[in-house]
Amino acid sequence: MTDTIKYLLPETEIPNTWYNLMADLPSPPPPPLHPGTKQPIGPDDLAPLFPQSLIMQEVATDREIEIPEPVRRIYRQWRPAPLYRARNLEKTLDTPARIYYKYEGVSPAGSHKPNTAVAQAFFNHDAGIRKITTETGAGQWGSSLAFAGALFGMEIQVFMVKVSYQQKPYRRALMETYGARCVASPSSETNVGREILARTPDNSGSLGIAISEAVEIAATNDDTKYALGSVLNHVLLHQTIVGKEAMKQMEMADDYPDVIVGCTGGGSNFAGIVFPFLGEQLRGGKKVDILAIEPAACPSLTRGKYAYDFGDTGHLTPLVKMHTLGSTFIPPAVHAGGLRYHGMAPMVSHIKDLGLIDARAYQQVEVFEAGVQFARAEGIVPAPEANHAVKGAIDEALKCKQEGRSRSILFNLCGHGHFDMQAYSDYFAGKLTDMSYDESELAMALAGLPSAQAA
Amino acid sequence: MTDTIKYLLPETEIPNTWYNLMADLPSPPPPPLHPGTKQPIGPDDLAPLFPQSLIMQEVATDREIEIPEPVRRIYRQWRPAPLYRARNLEKTLDTPARIYYKYEGVSPAGSHKPNTAVAQAFFNHDAGIRKITTETGAGQWGSSLAFAGALFGMEIQVFMVKVSYQQKPYRRALMETYGARCVASPSSETNVGREILARTPDNSGSLGIAISEAVEIAATNDDTKYALGSVLNHVLLHQTIVGKEAMKQMEMADDYPDVIVGCTGGGSNFAGIVFPFLGEQLRGGKKVDILAIEPAACPSLTRGKYAYDFGDTGHLTPLVKMHTLGSTFIPPAVHAGGLRYHGMAPMVSHIKDLGLIDARAYQQVEVFEAGVQFARAEGIVPAPEANHAVKGAIDEALKCKQEGRSRSILFNLCGHGHFDMQAYSDYFAGKLTDMSYDESELAMALAGLPSAQAA
Repeated sequence: MTDTIKYLLPETEIPNTWYNLMADLPSPPPPPLHPGTKQPIGPDDLAPLFPQSLIMQEVATDREIEIPEPVRRIYRQWRPAPLYRARNLEKTLDTPARIYYKYEGVSPAGSHKPNTAVAQAFFNHDAGIRKITTETGAGQWGSSLAFAGALFGMEIQVFMVKVSYQQKPYRRALMETYGARCVASPSSETNVGREILARTPDNSGSLGIAISEAVEIAATNDDTKYALGSVLNHVLLHQTIVGKEAMKQMEMADDYPDVIVGCTGGGSNFAGIVFPFLGEQLRGGKKVDILAIEPAACPSLTRGKYAYDFGDTGHLTPLVKMHTLGSTFIPPAVHAGGLRYHGMAPMVSHIKDLGLIDARAYQQVEVFEAGVQFARAEGIVPAPEANHAVKGAIDEALKCKQEGRSRSILFNLCGHGHFDMQAYSDYFAGKLTDMSYDESELAMALAGLPSAQAA
Repeated sequence: MTDTIKYLLPETEIPNTWYNLMADLPSPPPPPLHPGTKQPIGPDDLAPLFPQSLIMQEVATDREIEIPEPVRRIYRQWRPAPLYRARNLEKTLDTPARIYYKYEGVSPAGSHKPNTAVAQAFFNHDAGIRKITTETGAGQWGSSLAFAGALFGMEIQVFMVKVSYQQKPYRRALMETYGARCVASPSSETNVGREILARTPDNSGSLGIAISEAVEIAATNDDTKYALGSVLNHVLLHQTIVGKEAMKQMEMADDYPDVIVGCTGGGSNFAGIVFPFLGEQLRGGKKVDILAIEPAACPSLTRGKYAYDFGDTGHLTPLVKMHTLGSTFIPPAVHAGGLRYHGMAPMVSHIKDLGLIDARAYQQVEVFEAGVQFARAEGIVPAPEANHAVKGAIDEALKCKQEGRSRSILFNLCGHGHFDMQAYSDYFAGKLTDMSYDESELAMALAGLPSAQAA
């Protein structure tokens, strides 16, 4: 028998501000550099890609940044998102731990991504921008921006990694339903795409290539800007609404997390749940153990190098200091497509470097095993990405059992798995396997880092 | 720019009772008959299939029936479900109408079905039943019962129409994720199934056949009962939580519906939103126009006969008086699999016969057109079934525009379309077509009705 406890805030408790960790960090992250001059870039360098308001957020040091009322009005369609105490999972595991999860699958796109998509669409729309370009892997981000674009009546062009475009028609259909135009990348619509296709006509694409294409279109058209679904400071900022709500909900539960777990691809859902609590800690509040979980197939935090690197394959982006596997590294095609990025958000990389968080990598099969166990106990089927956080939380709870102590574990269930049932189908058919990269390919990608070349 | 208005009840406002329309009907619906004796069946006849508590609900005449606390506790995982004012859709249509929709896609299975699945699992579990069998077409119902079974630790066996089992692996994977056993029907696990396979080894199955199989297993095993996802009185009863919440939410909006629209397959989501308002009307409250929308490919209310018929193909169920296309009628394979049933809930049929509701049939392409228009305006992608209600509401709103009057339109958005993106994919590729049945096949099915034979 289940015993669901849901902590649901009233609508009036939707936060009025996003939280900016920059204000509380002991030191700022190293600045992004211009790839040519190797000098720190200024706001002007970003102007071709982003509206002024988002550039100001990218470099902001204020602790709280106001959420505009029109954005809050849209958030209200699905926010505040619920926080649950996973009582059934606790019973299944027979653990003294108290497990809580914040559930972001309630958004119309089924993940946390609309939190920033809506904000980015708003600020672009507000600046008179007509069209936004972006890239997407499995499609969570592209469909979220398509959703936001529909609400603001903006044109959205999504460069979708070709292999996903061909093999995962469902999120593409979702983008098209929202009225976005979805293009298989590499495409013949950009110089970058045409050059790659000339060299390798069968190229099945990568997130790095798709970013290059989307950036090129935005940089060369006045009425068009570019949007990124993770990595950048302002994207992480928008996601902090997750953690801010969770803080209030933990208060409702009369509890406070001892451990916070999130999965990491670019870092945005992780930052969303973690940053507000970490800020509290940095201001003298309670110390929380923070755990980032990444796929063993794409282990930027646990196997990458903390170095300056490009965010894309075409080397159109600034150089940012981050945990990276190298911009030429192509991760194996694990189902958690949202976690297949060679780099990591500079702010998440920085706090890892400062020793404020830990990281752990899991294999594909064990995270699905955890996801199925979670679904049977709690009734919600997680997205493959979220299964990493589930596995992390379960392992922490089992450690509590072993040690005989009751700790409070909070994790971010960043999306539902309804678009990913093929992965579960494969899991039950025994077709899902662990996936590894080639060590020599990783070594080569790391050797190709711009800083390695400079050294 | 969107202007979402969400009416969200506090958790304490989850109704304590389901509403039983039976108490307010001017006359009761004709009783179910024993197929052999043609005499009204009594509670005892149903005892092999259902626990006593559900049988009592099936024949109850009390106006309000208590929702047990453990069921309410589970409901709280996703209820109260939101009611929205579709302000963007109104703007898109440029209509003076006020359009409201109740959104049941927020449940973990993505539709309204868990409202009854949880209740049925609870009452069976409470009666010491170990296992429940059921049938499913596209899989909405099967996955909802699988969800409920997981929460109560019960064994769930789902007979899934073979063509769906083969062509739609995603909801099957969802059932398996929840721990249910899914069997392609016709199967070799039942007498009915074996006989059909012996005659037609390539039989691709139907809902009627799957019902026969599930019923046979339950009838022949002491610890096993059967559950149906629609049609029966107690199933419709459980869905009235939808309309009861909507009534409170319309009050929050300081409005009351002039028109209520729902899609109809077996009739349960329609009854859920409609019955509480219809009861109010029957007790002297405001008259509401009520509109049932069905697929033109399976038009039981608009083209069927109001007659006694079997609920299944194997003729194991009682005879019920309903709008039916004949139990041998096999509807074309429209994407709205949840609406492909030859009959209609006896209570819905009865109120149609009494002239308390109207019905309308739509073709497949026009309902997807409506669904896409809705998604772009409101940000939620409806299930193919729900697209029928969307189209009905849009047409009512356009009529308001034509007539220059502002009416209040309420419809039930009974589920999201995240599992149905193939249908949207087909729509955008121009591959989605209207589907018709063969008139001579319908005539033959109607001629085969037991009452027609008796006449």
